[in-house]
Amino acid sequence: MELNITGFIPKHMENRGKLTLKENLKIIENILEQRKVPENGIDEEHIKLLLRILSFMDTDKDPNVVQIGEREARVYTKLQREGVFDFCHGVGRSGNLIDPQPKAPGASVMYKLTNKLLESFLKTLGLKVKAIATPVATGMSLALCLSAARKKYNSNVVIYPYAAHKSPIKATSFIGMRMRLVETVLDGDIVKVNVGDVEDAIRKEINENNNPVVLSTLTFFPPRKSDDVEEIAKICQEYNIPHIINGAYAIQNFYYIEKLKKALKYRIDAVVSSSDKNLFTPIGGGIIYTKDESFLKEISLTYPGRASANPIVNILISLLAIGTKNYLNLMKEQKECKKLLDELLEDLAKKKDERVLNVENPISSCITTKKDPLDVAGKLYNLRVTGPRGVRRNDKFGTCYLKGYPYDYIVVNSAIGVKKDDIYKVIEKLDEVL
Amino acid sequence: MELNITGFIPKHMENRGKLTLKENLKIIENILEQRKVPENGIDEEHIKLLLRILSFMDTDKDPNVVQIGEREARVYTKLQREGVFDFCHGVGRSGNLIDPQPKAPGASVMYKLTNKLLESFLKTLGLKVKAIATPVATGMSLALCLSAARKKYNSNVVIYPYAAHKSPIKATSFIGMRMRLVETVLDGDIVKVNVGDVEDAIRKEINENNNPVVLSTLTFFPPRKSDDVEEIAKICQEYNIPHIINGAYAIQNFYYIEKLKKALKYRIDAVVSSSDKNLFTPIGGGIIYTKDESFLKEISLTYPGRASANPIVNILISLLAIGTKNYLNLMKEQKECKKLLDELLEDLAKKKDERVLNVENPISSCITTKKDPLDVAGKLYNLRVTGPRGVRRNDKFGTCYLKGYPYDYIVVNSAIGVKKDDIYKVIEKLDEVL
Amino acid sequence: MELNITGFIPKHMENRGKLTLKENLKIIENILEQRKVPENGIDEEHIKLLLRILSFMDTDKDPNVVQIGEREARVYTKLQREGVFDFCHGVGRSGNLIDPQPKAPGASVMYKLTNKLLESFLKTLGLKVKAIATPVATGMSLALCLSAARKKYNSNVVIYPYAAHKSPIKATSFIGMRMRLVETVLDGDIVKVNVGDVEDAIRKEINENNNPVVLSTLTFFPPRKSDDVEEIAKICQEYNIPHIINGAYAIQNFYYIEKLKKALKYRIDAVVSSSDKNLFTPIGGGIIYTKDESFLKEISLTYPGRASANPIVNILISLLAIGTKNYLNLMKEQKECKKLLDELLEDLAKKKDERVLNVENPISSCITTKKDPLDVAGKLYNLRVTGPRGVRRNDKFGTCYLKGYPYDYIVVNSAIGVKKDDIYKVIEKLDEVL
Amino acid sequence: MELNITGFIPKHMENRGKLTLKENLKIIENILEQRKVPENGIDEEHIKLLLRILSFMDTDKDPNVVQIGEREARVYTKLQREGVFDFCHGVGRSGNLIDPQPKAPGASVMYKLTNKLLESFLKTLGLKVKAIATPVATGMSLALCLSAARKKYNSNVVIYPYAAHKSPIKATSFIGMRMRLVETVLDGDIVKVNVGDVEDAIRKEINENNNPVVLSTLTFFPPRKSDDVEEIAKICQEYNIPHIINGAYAIQNFYYIEKLKKALKYRIDAVVSSSDKNLFTPIGGGIIYTKDESFLKEISLTYPGRASANPIVNILISLLAIGTKNYLNLMKEQKECKKLLDELLEDLAKKKDERVLNVENPISSCITTKKDPLDVAGKLYNLRVTGPRGVRRNDKFGTCYLKGYPYDYIVVNSAIGVKKDDIYKVIEKLDEVL
Ligand SMILES: Cc1ncc(COP(=O)(O)O)c(C=O)c1O
Ligand SMILES: Cc1ncc(COP(=O)(O)O)c(C=O)c1O
Ligand SMILES: Cc1ncc(COP(=O)(O)O)c(C=O)c1O
Ligand SMILES: Cc1ncc(COP(=O)(O)O)c(C=O)c1O
Repeated sequence: MELNITGFIPKHMENRGKLTLKENLKIIENILEQRKVPENGIDEEHIKLLLRILSFMDTDKDPNVVQIGEREARVYTKLQREGVFDFCHGVGRSGNLIDPQPKAPGASVMYKLTNKLLESFLKTLGLKVKAIATPVATGMSLALCLSAARKKYNSNVVIYPYAAHKSPIKATSFIGMRMRLVETVLDGDIVKVNVGDVEDAIRKEINENNNPVVLSTLTFFPPRKSDDVEEIAKICQEYNIPHIINGAYAIQNFYYIEKLKKALKYRIDAVVSSSDKNLFTPIGGGIIYTKDESFLKEISLTYPGRASANPIVNILISLLAIGTKNYLNLMKEQKECKKLLDELLEDLAKKKDERVLNVENPISSCITTKKDPLDVAGKLYNLRVTGPRGVRRNDKFGTCYLKGYPYDYIVVNSAIGVKKDDIYKVIEKLDEVL
Repeated sequence: MELNITGFIPKHMENRGKLTLKENLKIIENILEQRKVPENGIDEEHIKLLLRILSFMDTDKDPNVVQIGEREARVYTKLQREGVFDFCHGVGRSGNLIDPQPKAPGASVMYKLTNKLLESFLKTLGLKVKAIATPVATGMSLALCLSAARKKYNSNVVIYPYAAHKSPIKATSFIGMRMRLVETVLDGDIVKVNVGDVEDAIRKEINENNNPVVLSTLTFFPPRKSDDVEEIAKICQEYNIPHIINGAYAIQNFYYIEKLKKALKYRIDAVVSSSDKNLFTPIGGGIIYTKDESFLKEISLTYPGRASANPIVNILISLLAIGTKNYLNLMKEQKECKKLLDELLEDLAKKKDERVLNVENPISSCITTKKDPLDVAGKLYNLRVTGPRGVRRNDKFGTCYLKGYPYDYIVVNSAIGVKKDDIYKVIEKLDEVL
Repeated sequence: MELNITGFIPKHMENRGKLTLKENLKIIENILEQRKVPENGIDEEHIKLLLRILSFMDTDKDPNVVQIGEREARVYTKLQREGVFDFCHGVGRSGNLIDPQPKAPGASVMYKLTNKLLESFLKTLGLKVKAIATPVATGMSLALCLSAARKKYNSNVVIYPYAAHKSPIKATSFIGMRMRLVETVLDGDIVKVNVGDVEDAIRKEINENNNPVVLSTLTFFPPRKSDDVEEIAKICQEYNIPHIINGAYAIQNFYYIEKLKKALKYRIDAVVSSSDKNLFTPIGGGIIYTKDESFLKEISLTYPGRASANPIVNILISLLAIGTKNYLNLMKEQKECKKLLDELLEDLAKKKDERVLNVENPISSCITTKKDPLDVAGKLYNLRVTGPRGVRRNDKFGTCYLKGYPYDYIVVNSAIGVKKDDIYKVIEKLDEVL
Repeated sequence: MELNITGFIPKHMENRGKLTLKENLKIIENILEQRKVPENGIDEEHIKLLLRILSFMDTDKDPNVVQIGEREARVYTKLQREGVFDFCHGVGRSGNLIDPQPKAPGASVMYKLTNKLLESFLKTLGLKVKAIATPVATGMSLALCLSAARKKYNSNVVIYPYAAHKSPIKATSFIGMRMRLVETVLDGDIVKVNVGDVEDAIRKEINENNNPVVLSTLTFFPPRKSDDVEEIAKICQEYNIPHIINGAYAIQNFYYIEKLKKALKYRIDAVVSSSDKNLFTPIGGGIIYTKDESFLKEISLTYPGRASANPIVNILISLLAIGTKNYLNLMKEQKECKKLLDELLEDLAKKKDERVLNVENPISSCITTKKDPLDVAGKLYNLRVTGPRGVRRNDKFGTCYLKGYPYDYIVVNSAIGVKKDDIYKVIEKLDEVL
């Protein structure tokens, strides 16, 4: 940019002004140059300028453009432009999510940059992987992965160590694959799926000449424990079958990251995490990461048509605004809050003659209840507590599958971003209703 | 709202102020009361206030909330909040796109309202249908429809009268259905698919004990003509098989709308249109409409997990901001621009000793070229013309399928929102390069 | 700026993206390079970027700053930053409005640029003058001019050909000067001040050893006619006394501009116009222009302390956004609306047996009324007509001074920006209430 | 507001949504109901909604308005509207700043509300006064006060215990009053004005049949000490002459507030403080407060014409956003930073063989230097330290007046909003350059 401000102000002030401008622009240039998540987050004004500059590269911003297509990103209001940060052409091409879109060089760069930053971010956490941001949340991102597995490996059945979340199940049925559930078993208070049972399921399917793909679950509500993704990855390697991991909120806690690191030595085709649960974006985006670059490419080829740029930009903004240092701090706070939660829950349990379930979970805790847990959850909702889950022991699909559970219980979570204040208050409220 | 402004200003001014406020709020109240697209569009400030009020209903805005879930729509920057108009919880539930989300009463109302307005809008255009806005564009919306057809009717093969767009083809492979292409034939300059051939394809699949679903195409680049959706709908009715229509940019011109109206008397399970091509939103949303309410429900049940609110709000904003009257005007202008385009193209063709192809299309026109059409298109791109398509006669997948075409040609479009100026300029540029 | 986007997208797209960016940045560079109001207005996004770049030059944006003053432009909310377009340090220094502020090189450049553009704008209208934008409206800007006259010429009395507006009168008393009113006389329907009477007043003051400054009025409500600024300028030249013109809404119509052009050949020290009435800014800014550069400097030295940057930026935005071509169009529309108003008023007068007063005014018209004009004005207010003035014939200070007037009347205005629709509607309403 | 959302979502969710909305609106209603600065600041979204609702009361927002005046707040861009928070009509009437403006009921309410909140805020700090926010900064606000004193009391000379700031001096000359400076004297390291000398000056002027008004200075750079406003107020009371206090940054520290509280028992006509230095607004607003309500009215009557709403809204926003609790915390931090500054300065002085001057100032400190203080200041500017002042001992107007001072020195400030980090860094930089 050639900014001719000569003669407006005294030279020494002009120099000072230009220096300050230069340092501000440097912040943006550095992002593009280094392509890494900065240690210290950068502020919204700089992020806005970066986005402004990139979106000024899209052809719909060309002052001399002649628009003669059927799709020219003509947008009715400024409000809508702002909502997509002026990336009106979205991301992707007719059938390749990360392909450069000729009408949108700026959005294309923005997307590539996001993916680069994402990789640098995951690397900081210890995960040396390739990654893409997706314009859809966990469920739909899982659908992309499973569909890509079908295309690449002719997979025709999803082996699913049962976890009671509708999203993965719907993802499977949406893309038209059969699901073979692997039942959970009880281990003390813990509900888990035996790795042996997973292997059995794989074998059965192979024997029936099917091509199974395993969808394991790393993050889940207790008492359901994380699947042993390392062991499953070993098995998948052995049987040479694809392995997708649902790690919806995996990158907020090193408990999960460590498990992933170990598992990544064996067969993992893709891990899916939510952008909102881990990266403080609004709901609607996801991230997919793996060591298998060619499979990641396959996934990106799976998405039909273009998509909104909004979820992608949200991921970019979070990465730039948070910075690695602050993210590590937030992870630390999450851990402290979880510790506090457990201490307070223990006290409460004693007082109420209940038990804190002995589950292994770095985010969530369970307390038993002698009341109807659905009733308790309803009351908590009315007391303006969002997020707790009440599960009846005989709820077949509650957390376990096809089996009863010894207790009625309530799950409360201490996820990244939670405040100590929330912890204290939920205990108060639990005290009222338990 | 109780606004105590007593004593601040003289009573008559207070009354005047309150009256003005009331009338401004009335604009918003009317939207919620009447649930119809207003005749005259409303301005951005009122739209913002409506969105503000609705988003103030979501639980993450509750000043007394205790947030203890793993997904609490904690968003890092104001910038990101603005991008989703503060509907941070997105839309949908774990597996039902239009289901009310307990954590987001406001977003849920917003979504329902959008769908209501959409129906009223389509009704104004003459289409008495049920409709939903989707947070994904045409390709992914088609995927939802086809997957729903599979779930409801066990459909296992998509009969596709060939149209050379990757999105529908990818949509089909993404959800894992086989595609049976029906070949195109030449009819003068026109490329079309004979309805008889579609029927044959259906019959063949049924004979092989398959359950076909037809994916017909209403809007396409000439010389490929619209499928005869009315006749196809009759056949689908006869054979009792589902029928999905790709009407990517169908609702901007009465030529298509009339075809749809006639076809809707017979078997149509869903029509998909793009929100960006018809409604001036940024890319990323779609609309699905049909007379078959229960199938629409099925479609909405198909989406796995939640989705970004951004594309939905964009549709709402467009409907409110444009208004029916202005939309009808825009349709009129589109028609006039198309007429102008054809006149100027004819003159140019005469001058260059080329032909304007005799195709039946209300949006796009084709002119032959003696030069290499890819070369021409490339030159136009460099002359900053976006949107034209250059197709070689022997391009197997160009517009037709598996057949040669008599001419090399260029397609130019006069879609809704085009300016007369663009038309004049593209002719100028064509004059330079043809 | 060095934007390293290499490797993200194919080279030809990168080039295209950079070209588009370059052309967008060019728009901003051109403004700084040419320092002229563009012929065609530029859009808000480019204006925002220009302001962003300039405000990134202020020291409070320096990422490495150490802030150790008592005034460091620490601002509590983003909202407030946005309101001043991030020029948090305001404009001016402890006592020189247009002096560069060392803490705010960017704001200083912005202010100088505004003044340059203003001069180019006035030149386009035919006024070859020096000009400054002021952060205060007409009244306070007049105060600055009068005070500067006192400082430079020891002026101690303001000769004021009476015009019934409080702002100039208050301006005078605020800065502590005596005012000598020159009475108005009747000339047909017109109320005016005889130039001879102004000269007499000047002579009297000089005889009493005073140093008068003349404050004439160019724009006013009829039946008060514009002062004959040319003749007054001649007289001021002859007597060598300063002459300030209140041209509150003078630059929207060539009737006034022509008068100014003629008068500028003689003694005019400063003309004041409102930014909101002429340039479509929110209320709060003014413009001062003159051929006398050294007096303009004196005026700028008069303002005590710093001031908000908001009114200055508003003027800059208007100049950039409107462009000269569009402004000339708006002037044309104003003229047409005035013509329409007069025609319709004549018809109405006939119907109601009233008269349209025979006054010479390019903006406003008067119609007589047999009803109480205050009552009529009150009713119009309740009918939501803003702006009409009802004046009783015996209102001593109404429009004339110390004299009765032959009629009760209503003034309606057709100022720049008025819509034909407003004209039709006010006639309707007048029809109801007259 | 009647929001009909019935039927969109289940009743219990509707109730929850409405409850959340209600509580959010309650925050706004409470502001209008209680008219007090809240203990805890409220967030920007609520503030925006409050401003939105009030600005929707102005007549230019009336959907049915007929605009027929010469001043109709027609604004060219959305950007400009946002800058004044859509209060396009500004504040004030032709000559009364706080008078309700019939075209702008909303802005009028906004202004009254601001003044009410301001009074409640000052009360929290211990000052039981009436107050108005002004749309101009300290210098111009002082001009308003002095001019009002002239109008009410025929004051014709300003007694000014000399403090070397141009703003008050320019304010006086701007409004055309003579200034009698009272010279400073040395008292140890301190420079001060003896109250006896002030009394002498008053007596002299009275003897010459003049009507003096005293303009004392409460906040100033050391070594100049605060004027003894209590004693001066006693004297003014005794002689029955008006007394204006320049308290530019007085309300950020209880040292000053205590002095004011004591002085307010005697004669104070008005105190002026800056909004930016005390309340974290952008530069451009002021506050004037006093126990003398009728004089405050007089001041408000002094402003000629209307003014920009921006500086007023900025004050309102700060009051709402900060809240009393947080403001008290910020005051505490300011004090701690000052303490830290003094400790570090002492260490540095020892190391450099310099002295920290023994002055009495709660915000600023001075350190002597053996180098040229202007040079030191220049170097600090280049090291990106903003705010320090370098004064040569023989600078006649430096801090003292007409007298030499024993040392060359540098002033550094620890004003409200300063960060500990700034303190550490300035010491570092001083270490480099001293
Ligand atoms: C295990 C698991 N899978 C999936 C999801 C969410 O899926 P989506 O992001 O598609 O709503 C969640 C959280 O809601 C989850 O906990
Ligand atoms: C026939 C047809 N189908 C689909 C699409 C687009 O699909 P999507 O909105 O998913 O990018 C288009 C336009 O690009 C089209 O013309
Ligand atoms: C002749 C005249 N002077 C002054 C003003 C306004 O002064 P201000 O811009 O200070 O409100 C007006 C318009 O209101 C006016 O018509
Ligand atoms: C004593 C004193 N008076 C006045 C001012 C400022 O006046 P204004 O707010 O008009 O720039 C300051 C600070 O800059 C000051 O310290």
